[in-house]
Amino acid sequence: MRAKELMDKNFVYLNCEDDVIEVSKVMEEIRRFTCPVVNDNKQLVGWITSFDITRGLREGNGKISEIMSGYEEVATVHEDDPARKAVILTANNKFVTVPVVNDDNQIVGMVRACDIVELLSELYDIKVEKLYKAMQNQLKGVTWEELMSASAIVSTKTTGQKITAEEYEANIVSATFGEAIWSTGGLEKFFAGLISVGEMVIARRVGRARK
Amino acid sequence: MRAKELMDKNFVYLNCEDDVIEVSKVMEEIRRFTCPVVNDNKQLVGWITSFDITRGLREGNGKISEIMSGYEEVATVHEDDPARKAVILTANNKFVTVPVVNDDNQIVGMVRACDIVELLSELYDIKVEKLYKAMQNQLKGVTWEELMSASAIVSTKTTGQKITAEEYEANIVSATFGEAIWSTGGLEKFFAGLISVGEMVIARRVGRARK
Repeated sequence: MRAKELMDKNFVYLNCEDDVIEVSKVMEEIRRFTCPVVNDNKQLVGWITSFDITRGLREGNGKISEIMSGYEEVATVHEDDPARKAVILTANNKFVTVPVVNDDNQIVGMVRACDIVELLSELYDIKVEKLYKAMQNQLKGVTWEELMSASAIVSTKTTGQKITAEEYEANIVSATFGEAIWSTGGLEKFFAGLISVGEMVIARRVGRARK
Repeated sequence: MRAKELMDKNFVYLNCEDDVIEVSKVMEEIRRFTCPVVNDNKQLVGWITSFDITRGLREGNGKISEIMSGYEEVATVHEDDPARKAVILTANNKFVTVPVVNDDNQIVGMVRACDIVELLSELYDIKVEKLYKAMQNQLKGVTWEELMSASAIVSTKTTGQKITAEEYEANIVSATFGEAIWSTGGLEKFFAGLISVGEMVIARRVGRARK
């Protein structure tokens, strides 16, 4: 995924000559704590945060150019950079927004922390049941009942807590991937458990075929 | 994971009587766009954003109580709520911060969008190699070479692009889980591919055992 696929193309930008009081009203209205400042060619020349605005209002500054951070202080990502670069910048620097530029240093979008949260959390919200359905689909000839039965056996063996196939099924119908990796102790362990289930159903299938 | 395990316990809170100008300086200094307002018992009574501050400065308000949002307008999570509740609030409402309260409605921490990004992105950054190692560990008696060989065959079959076991290994050593699910088209597909690899190495092992 590229930065341009994650960015919000709908954003407000400011000019150096804009009036601080007017900008403060605009930022309140659109509810943005940060805004890029651009030149006539839409190239990034500065950055405004609500902190610059409150300072500007207190000190009676008139123009955005008097209070903005300069271009060289703004961390940007290129539109073709991996989206991950914007994610790392956000996490490491506690940013709420990272501006996205093109080859001409024109600003083309904004990657926002809340949008990253939305994107990343989608993965966590995938139902575990979907993974089991993918597994069943992959392992041709294995029934859902066989899969649940093997899962209950593996789970009982791993956790030491007895669970029936029916109870196991009820669990995975409601559980999300995020809950599953949290409760099993991480992605690798969750994954190892699933491989173990796969191994068992394959072994049983082979056993049946031999009879 | 509970909200209290994700929240930042280090935060600044305001009182109703605080001076708007002084608060604006504090928020600039600590670089926070939002702050909770509490009573003497540290119970949440209101919420301040930089938008309230800029409006207050423009309109000459003196006290925080004159410009804050009331308690009933603030979305909170309880410290024992699942962390996921704060994540959903952040994603759905574009919040930068969600306050965390205890049974007495005292504020005990703040869940911040940037911290959520950091937490969620850890999963995406897990090396794919680790999952293969977990798989090898689970499937006793399967060598790393057999695993890579089976993976290359499955990959060639799935994508139509020929890849050797050595090339496959080079790929997974550098790839992260996030990149892998993105390039295969989602968690279920990535997972189905791994099951397919597991199936092949098990079938080969059974084949060897029969000879």
